[in-house]
Amino acid sequence: MPLDQVLNAESVAIVGASKTDTKRGFQAIRTLLDGKFEGKIYPVNPKENKILGISCYKKVSDIKEPVDIALITTPASTIRDVLIDCGKKGVAGAVIIAGGFRELGEKGRKVEEELMKTAREQNIRLIGPNTSGMMNLKNNLNLVGLHDVPKGDIALISQSGNMALSLITEASLKSRKGFSYYVGVGNELDIRFHEYLEFFKNDPDTKAILMYVEGMRDGRRFLQEAYKTTLHKPIILLKSGRSRTGQLSAGSHTGALAGISEVSRSAFTRAGIIVVEKSDALFPVAETLSNLPLLKNNQIAILADGGGHATIAADILSDFGVLIPELSEHTQQKLTKILPFTASVRNPVDVAGGTDSDPTLFAECAKIILKDHNVGGLLMVGLFGGYGIRFAESLSLQEEDAAHQLGKLVKKQGKPIVVHSLYSSVKPRALDLLRYYKVPVYDSLDVSCRCIAALSERGQYINEYHAKMNFIFNWRQKAKPEGASIINEAIKENRRFLLEPEAKQLLRLHGAAVSSDALAKTADEAVKIAEKYKDKVALKIVSPDILHKSDAGGVLLNLNTESEIRKAFDDIMHNALQYKPDADIRGVLVSPMAKKGLEIIIGTKIDDQFGPVIMFGLGGIMVEVLKDVSFRVLPISPRSAKHMMEEIKGTVLLNGIRGEKPYDKAAIKKLLLLCSELVESYPEIMEMDLNPVIVYENGIQIVDARIILNDKCSLDINTIRE
Amino acid sequence: MPLDQVLNAESVAIVGASKTDTKRGFQAIRTLLDGKFEGKIYPVNPKENKILGISCYKKVSDIKEPVDIALITTPASTIRDVLIDCGKKGVAGAVIIAGGFRELGEKGRKVEEELMKTAREQNIRLIGPNTSGMMNLKNNLNLVGLHDVPKGDIALISQSGNMALSLITEASLKSRKGFSYYVGVGNELDIRFHEYLEFFKNDPDTKAILMYVEGMRDGRRFLQEAYKTTLHKPIILLKSGRSRTGQLSAGSHTGALAGISEVSRSAFTRAGIIVVEKSDALFPVAETLSNLPLLKNNQIAILADGGGHATIAADILSDFGVLIPELSEHTQQKLTKILPFTASVRNPVDVAGGTDSDPTLFAECAKIILKDHNVGGLLMVGLFGGYGIRFAESLSLQEEDAAHQLGKLVKKQGKPIVVHSLYSSVKPRALDLLRYYKVPVYDSLDVSCRCIAALSERGQYINEYHAKMNFIFNWRQKAKPEGASIINEAIKENRRFLLEPEAKQLLRLHGAAVSSDALAKTADEAVKIAEKYKDKVALKIVSPDILHKSDAGGVLLNLNTESEIRKAFDDIMHNALQYKPDADIRGVLVSPMAKKGLEIIIGTKIDDQFGPVIMFGLGGIMVEVLKDVSFRVLPISPRSAKHMMEEIKGTVLLNGIRGEKPYDKAAIKKLLLLCSELVESYPEIMEMDLNPVIVYENGIQIVDARIILNDKCSLDINTIRE
Repeated sequence: MPLDQVLNAESVAIVGASKTDTKRGFQAIRTLLDGKFEGKIYPVNPKENKILGISCYKKVSDIKEPVDIALITTPASTIRDVLIDCGKKGVAGAVIIAGGFRELGEKGRKVEEELMKTAREQNIRLIGPNTSGMMNLKNNLNLVGLHDVPKGDIALISQSGNMALSLITEASLKSRKGFSYYVGVGNELDIRFHEYLEFFKNDPDTKAILMYVEGMRDGRRFLQEAYKTTLHKPIILLKSGRSRTGQLSAGSHTGALAGISEVSRSAFTRAGIIVVEKSDALFPVAETLSNLPLLKNNQIAILADGGGHATIAADILSDFGVLIPELSEHTQQKLTKILPFTASVRNPVDVAGGTDSDPTLFAECAKIILKDHNVGGLLMVGLFGGYGIRFAESLSLQEEDAAHQLGKLVKKQGKPIVVHSLYSSVKPRALDLLRYYKVPVYDSLDVSCRCIAALSERGQYINEYHAKMNFIFNWRQKAKPEGASIINEAIKENRRFLLEPEAKQLLRLHGAAVSSDALAKTADEAVKIAEKYKDKVALKIVSPDILHKSDAGGVLLNLNTESEIRKAFDDIMHNALQYKPDADIRGVLVSPMAKKGLEIIIGTKIDDQFGPVIMFGLGGIMVEVLKDVSFRVLPISPRSAKHMMEEIKGTVLLNGIRGEKPYDKAAIKKLLLLCSELVESYPEIMEMDLNPVIVYENGIQIVDARIILNDKCSLDINTIRE
Repeated sequence: MPLDQVLNAESVAIVGASKTDTKRGFQAIRTLLDGKFEGKIYPVNPKENKILGISCYKKVSDIKEPVDIALITTPASTIRDVLIDCGKKGVAGAVIIAGGFRELGEKGRKVEEELMKTAREQNIRLIGPNTSGMMNLKNNLNLVGLHDVPKGDIALISQSGNMALSLITEASLKSRKGFSYYVGVGNELDIRFHEYLEFFKNDPDTKAILMYVEGMRDGRRFLQEAYKTTLHKPIILLKSGRSRTGQLSAGSHTGALAGISEVSRSAFTRAGIIVVEKSDALFPVAETLSNLPLLKNNQIAILADGGGHATIAADILSDFGVLIPELSEHTQQKLTKILPFTASVRNPVDVAGGTDSDPTLFAECAKIILKDHNVGGLLMVGLFGGYGIRFAESLSLQEEDAAHQLGKLVKKQGKPIVVHSLYSSVKPRALDLLRYYKVPVYDSLDVSCRCIAALSERGQYINEYHAKMNFIFNWRQKAKPEGASIINEAIKENRRFLLEPEAKQLLRLHGAAVSSDALAKTADEAVKIAEKYKDKVALKIVSPDILHKSDAGGVLLNLNTESEIRKAFDDIMHNALQYKPDADIRGVLVSPMAKKGLEIIIGTKIDDQFGPVIMFGLGGIMVEVLKDVSFRVLPISPRSAKHMMEEIKGTVLLNGIRGEKPYDKAAIKKLLLLCSELVESYPEIMEMDLNPVIVYENGIQIVDARIILNDKCSLDINTIRE
């Protein structure tokens, strides 16, 4: 494994080791000693003999024994020389703490690139720069200088040291969980997100991967790796930098460009990642997913000792799309027997004071409820854990009894229980017991609900895994020779786009329904072509020098009579030459006007982080005014194509409203998949714009198509290592 | 003040007093004693002589001294007799704990009404039933049986005892704040939300009012009272029961119908209430608003010691619509001088390690930032308070120094500071100091951002208060005699709606632009009328027996020639008689076809909780498919009318897209206000439906109008006490 020697290093040189206790070069050694690092520590500082009782070296290459990695705490300007020295010694990896690189602009970016070059030459893998460091909690290789980090089965990958510190602090204070590794990816100069991911995917001690991301430099590779990982281990991710200010802030932080949020959200979700929106829920969701069985259906029961919490929880869960089904009659009868007559037993279940004098009733209720086949899991909300505090101390023992029963119940029924308790932060013993049984407890309703929703989301993902697609292209495999030559022809002419007839021909080659058309060089020819169509026609300029035909006055529609057509031909030629006097005009495209139907728009483009993506929306105001579109990273599966249609707000229009018949959704789906195939077949395609496409009750017609090319194969840049 | 004797009671009878320590009738007395209630306690239980050392009475009327209120802990079935006995004694109020009333259905509702009748007869005001009780923390009248409730300046009104307990627990654990009063409104049988509100509005010791609401029985009165309150004191409110399951759960809880969320949200907001969406933020927002000066503008600065927190905070704040402006050049220069070169100083400000060895730098930065005129307030995010824990203990003293400086800065600058610290729950001294200076500290970024956003929201509300309208109708004041007689005529005929010509005439009377029309009794008349219009016409049936004209085949459009009109007239008459053979047909309305324009829809109806409301949306798919509408409680101000237009997603269409000229928004605004006036002038109007209204570049035309009446003045039901 390539990262093994770095992340599981057994010897570490501390470059910039120091005797000053506020310096990083001191804190790192102190933490390694305090934490009982199982490997060797080599302080490096030309001015010191010993630090904290360990002999110091003048430089890394002076060390006799093998050195796996170096922690470099010296300033940016010194690092190149340190790397060269490390190279001499055969060091496998370096953690570079210093900031002051690409996050400060062009100059920093150049220094960074120099560094990368040196590292490659010296065969050293880099973590950072601009990182808080890394930790291996298994062999106590703690290079962050942070003490008392709880050990456990969660691997943490973060683009912010402070967010890592938040999550670690939260774990210590509010859970029994801990971490297997932490990596601060920093500027992601060398080792990228997907490489860390691959390492943690294969690490047997890591059960869940928790990530804080501002922007990724190789998003597509990350998706590919995530897709393989999430079948086996949950990935929980918060992506910030949605807002403009957030992006600026993220930019100044790690120098990564924060991506468009809709694109990344749908991409992450499709790769099986649980995307968390609120930082409050980030660690709890990781705790829950690494502890509990998944929901086998999307249906949960709520057990409450008062209405308010249950009502709020029901609101939140329904926002997350989790269902709260009515319990079976049998279940309701059994609950009625043990609860007061004022209790609600439908779901949410409200014990209505029934537990006031005997909290073990919670466990009784939970047993009855989880036996119900409709119920995939249980959310308990309210005061549990606080009865001993709130009412009478004697109740604490009963709460502890209930906690034992609840804890065992999860294992027995194979269904998860999540507990909300407003006494969570008081840490009564009953709640600590629940945590011992891996039942998570939170004092926030929002967080508790997010956690059980995550169990449902991941449960559904795993159920439907077979229908998913990975993110790997089979480049050019389905390309047609004629298609390839259309594109090559354009590139030979140094064109950055296909002419409309070329684009349409390319689509036709792959089976798309494109309006018929023919090129006219003269007004006579235009009239002759129009006669054939026996319908009104449209005339459009065809010129390699005019991409935006309408702007150039190069499009005229609804032409009926011979004289109209002649005049239109002349006007278009005139307008085109006005627009660009030396334009190379190939002719005017004549095509019959499309019949009325529902307009849709399909487009593809290259996303900065994820490479090729596809967009779908309805024509007219729906896209232009309401921005009602759906996105997917390419390639897409038939299932994704279907979801793209269902996801937009205007989706009901596809079914036909006000007595209209439904539109041909099968044809739209086919066209979306065809666009996916086209991008896969011809990697030179940078952007594609089918606008408008008209959909009918039966069939579909592409009225205009624009395809933008890159002179080189554009996608090499984005997926260079695929 | 009517509630004074109840909420400030100086003597209390405990009906159902008990010696058993798990019983409410014991806990209440114990808490009153422990809490040193300043008034008199009278246990009432026919079977006991003394409880906790206090003499017991057989019944309330046996007590010799005056009794202000009774806490009734006995079951539902006993309460009527207790109330009669309390009446004898002249008790002013009773708190009824028992559940089992309207929340269980029709039978319970009847028992409840009986109770209400008895209470009225006995001149007793009721809190509850189905409540956890009430507390006056000023004289230690604690009838909830809950110890150690922190005292302070927040009044708490809650429809759920558990939510109250959550909020009180949170206050104890996480703040230095406390409560002046708590009322559990329960089923709101007698005393309603607005009465409690009025009491707290006038209470000098209450600085903020915190509310948890599931549904209100007299929402309009509440809005009126809230409108008067919020100018002086903040109201912070969470409304649950949005989801269907939430509504069911709320229903079983307090028997109040949870209202439509958009209506209530816009109504609450307009009354100056801060509506909080997440229960996590409910108490913190109340703390913040009762502690800090408001934001004078909507612009804040973020001060961070690491990028991640700042980026996330920027995202959340921009979701709340708070701006994060670039700091002035002067401010940036001053910050640059004291921070490392890697720091960001634009906003968010990232100290980039600058505070690691000296946290007093936080206070220095805050001083510089708050002097910037662009900045209305400051959000500090990150590790502050934890430097002593995280790095070196000696830093704690510097943090405490910084806390003193930051605390005083708020007062000096009159600008708020809110602090996020991931060490909040560890409670280091520096954070406790901040709280002493009334600077709130939270460990959640979401919550911290919500709090500073609330300061901005309330600041803006107060700034614009003069432009607001209260929720009081001036019934019939602007009614026209002819309008009143149109309505009376219809009522005399036992009609539940106005005929189209009547509805249009009513609108015309108040100055609306309605398409011209005339009633034809014969086909000849129809032809003659149509000739006058010199345009295509529409024919519509006019009959008191046909409300839905189209359904009855009673509408035909775009009629041009005489023969078309004759045929249409005959068809409509035929269709109408087919639809309802004994229909009373008044004729056929002939009107010219409206010219094309933008279709809008305006409607009014009576909301269950808030009385008359108005709706606005764009015609076609925008309303019918996308449900893109805005709501306001009536009456509305010109400002509200403007906001209604701006609030819908389709609002850009009003400005004209694709080179269209803007539509006549002034005319729409006028029409919205006219509808408001109409409902106010004729309280018999239950529903009004102007659909479609066509808007042009200049002017507007109402094409069809439907007005539904109530035979009685419908609004008496909803606003009986106005």
